[in-house]
Amino acid sequence: MNYKNFPMVPRVIFGRGSFNQLNDILSPKRLNINAPFIYLVDDVFKNNSWLTSRIQLSYDDKIIFISSKEEPKTSQVDVLVEEIILLTKERPSGIIGIGGGTLLDLAKAVAIMLTNEGEAKDYQGWDLVKNEGIYHVGIPTISGTGAEVSRTTVLTGPHKKLGINSDFTPFDQVILDSELTKNVPTDQWFYTGMDCYIHCVESLNGTYLNAFSQSYGDMALDLCKEIFLSDDLSEVEAQEKLMMASWHGGMSIVYSQVGVAHAMSYGLSYLLGTKHGIGNCIVFNHLEEFYPEGVKLFKEMKAKHHIELPEGICANLSDDEFNTMIDISLSLEPLWENALGKSWKKTITREKLRALYQKM
Amino acid sequence: MNYKNFPMVPRVIFGRGSFNQLNDILSPKRLNINAPFIYLVDDVFKNNSWLTSRIQLSYDDKIIFISSKEEPKTSQVDVLVEEIILLTKERPSGIIGIGGGTLLDLAKAVAIMLTNEGEAKDYQGWDLVKNEGIYHVGIPTISGTGAEVSRTTVLTGPHKKLGINSDFTPFDQVILDSELTKNVPTDQWFYTGMDCYIHCVESLNGTYLNAFSQSYGDMALDLCKEIFLSDDLSEVEAQEKLMMASWHGGMSIVYSQVGVAHAMSYGLSYLLGTKHGIGNCIVFNHLEEFYPEGVKLFKEMKAKHHIELPEGICANLSDDEFNTMIDISLSLEPLWENALGKSWKKTITREKLRALYQKM
Repeated sequence: MNYKNFPMVPRVIFGRGSFNQLNDILSPKRLNINAPFIYLVDDVFKNNSWLTSRIQLSYDDKIIFISSKEEPKTSQVDVLVEEIILLTKERPSGIIGIGGGTLLDLAKAVAIMLTNEGEAKDYQGWDLVKNEGIYHVGIPTISGTGAEVSRTTVLTGPHKKLGINSDFTPFDQVILDSELTKNVPTDQWFYTGMDCYIHCVESLNGTYLNAFSQSYGDMALDLCKEIFLSDDLSEVEAQEKLMMASWHGGMSIVYSQVGVAHAMSYGLSYLLGTKHGIGNCIVFNHLEEFYPEGVKLFKEMKAKHHIELPEGICANLSDDEFNTMIDISLSLEPLWENALGKSWKKTITREKLRALYQKM
Repeated sequence: MNYKNFPMVPRVIFGRGSFNQLNDILSPKRLNINAPFIYLVDDVFKNNSWLTSRIQLSYDDKIIFISSKEEPKTSQVDVLVEEIILLTKERPSGIIGIGGGTLLDLAKAVAIMLTNEGEAKDYQGWDLVKNEGIYHVGIPTISGTGAEVSRTTVLTGPHKKLGINSDFTPFDQVILDSELTKNVPTDQWFYTGMDCYIHCVESLNGTYLNAFSQSYGDMALDLCKEIFLSDDLSEVEAQEKLMMASWHGGMSIVYSQVGVAHAMSYGLSYLLGTKHGIGNCIVFNHLEEFYPEGVKLFKEMKAKHHIELPEGICANLSDDEFNTMIDISLSLEPLWENALGKSWKKTITREKLRALYQKM
């Protein structure tokens, strides 16, 4: 047995308003005046001076606003890297991602691709990255994905939706300021929070489970139940707790793996561009067979927050399209093995997956 | 408000038998053949080839066996540093601590003092260390103190018992192999495990509490209850869970602080040399007034495991001796403030502390 020597985020600051300390944290990391900091910021914050006025731009520092309407793509990473190389006199001092999973994953990927040759798609997989990326900072403005703590950056490439999993992927610094999540719309809050909840259910019910993953998963699951089912928390408390749940949920899959919902939602996302959070919800809603208790509780949460999921999104797909989704899904072998054990292929056939997708 | 930018252990490996990967982890960290790895190992493992045969000594690598019968001292650190400088041709490639809190704290302090001038006592306090220490690895062989994850190394100096708290203190690498804890004697297992339990009670009942510390504290507390009060766990499960509880308990005090038990047990330890785990137990046993529920549960755990605590250890102390303990205890202001709030001095008088110590 060989265990993974897991890289953790080496610096983390937690606290309401800690975003105010951003400039103090970055200053000592500036390499020289020609090596700027590049901020990748979700474009929902464009014209939001409450946030942007606190980013102190010096020398050649730049903010690049990016839409998170679509899932991040390898081609988008390549374009960003090209743009940054053209914009800057020297390699940047750091990349700072401010946003949800999409922005955080883009920041991680850009930091890596600035020091590694070729295209981002070449690095989709496990441990293909050769050189340490440049200093990169993650600042979540929505909670749930665990992107702030994970060793992956999940990208849609020309052939697959798959992460760049490497020891160089995790952020060098994370700022956890729950105040940044205060204006997240309810549906988005729910979908992204459920990504965390689903991580926990998949990790805790997986065959890869161990005491490390279980302790983090139990903790994140308890927090999710408190946040999404109780009425005892103030808004601020709920925001702070969801930020911690996201963190712990991300830690829980370090030594385990996600499962059926992720394996299937990657198919939806690849073919239809369905965003990760809502995609997981659409899939998980039909997984009673695999996660009976988890799905029951999910439905309670959904009802409590009056969330209506889209239906029939696969109604008009062609055979070819179903096959594409099924191919993507089946290729995620570790996820299936975690969910159902080594002989998962006995249960999970193409027909079975098609029947499930047809319900969605 | 200014939040602490907390350094986390950047690499962690978790798993039964992961100690076997030690040499693979260290090899790439060897600076050159004249820069050895120095292993500080609890002398209970002397002649224990099950453990020592797995430490591969190359070139000038050395194992130094150290007794953990006494709490670690600043003078002991200074002697070790001197010894290592004389032993080695160049500054070592790394210091590897293998043992409980005593050995882990010694390893952290030695790694720091090899690159910082003067004596260890000069650095007792907060953020006094100037230079990064050398690469250091922590491998706990008993669980509870959280020394593997903390940013302190608690030492008894000529004038005080106080930690070297700094961003350079945490380990660069931790190996969490619960198999190494399999032969811990029951009383020691209990005392050290209770150190974790007491961390949680003090953190969760402190005025410094926040969502970060609470989530870790809740998790560690739940694990402690399961380990020390239920009968459902196998030995291996209990060992793995206690290892995680120690880790999470240590994380819980990152953004909060310990409280009354630690403030008072430091006094015992300074004057009488009482080891930290048992010292905390002796004190906590008399703290119903401050932690009624926590102490009640502690007594249940103590009864269940047939632990008899020493009594009357302060029976024959002189006034001067009481005063020394009281001085040490009162000097730990952040602990008292966390426990009882800003106006703690109204409740905690010298007479009050003396009366409490007299019960012990």
